[in-house]
Amino acid sequence: MPLFMDRHHAVDGLTAQAVAAAHQSDLAIQAQHGVNYKQYWFNEETGDVYCLVEAPSAEAAATVHREAHGLLADEIVEVHEGS
Amino acid sequence: MPLFMDRHHAVDGLTAQAVAAAHQSDLAIQAQHGVNYKQYWFNEETGDVYCLVEAPSAEAAATVHREAHGLLADEIVEVHEGS
Repeated sequence: MPLFMDRHHAVDGLTAQAVAAAHQSDLAIQAQHGVNYKQYWFNEETGDVYCLVEAPSAEAAATVHREAHGLLADEIVEVHEGS
Repeated sequence: MPLFMDRHHAVDGLTAQAVAAAHQSDLAIQAQHGVNYKQYWFNEETGDVYCLVEAPSAEAAATVHREAHGLLADEIVEVHEGS
């Protein structure tokens, strides 16, 4: 399945708790869209979040974010994992 | 040790082989700077590369890239890994 890295920038009021809750909301509904949010990384000061996600398409990954919490990424790039 | 995500954008002539070779060059010298390049993801068409790296500072991570292959990231953000 294709792999994507998304990036959210300058998310207002980002906290570790808020991003963990948003991620849990993604996990709760992602199977409906054939999506698997695998890992994420964040910075509370800059409001940056990077999500690594397997999905049939970038659109499917974005749909999960939209339905789960409404926080859409600023960009999403299909990637391969280096070895 | 602090964790960082760096991002290279629109790297000219990026191939899976070239980025793998550059990563191996990072691994070969990183211990001199107390740095650990852990994972990377790339897109050959857009020339994007994301590197996840443990380092004492963003500067130390950049020094490894500079000495290993000269390809510096366009940005580097300190991150925490989500759970």
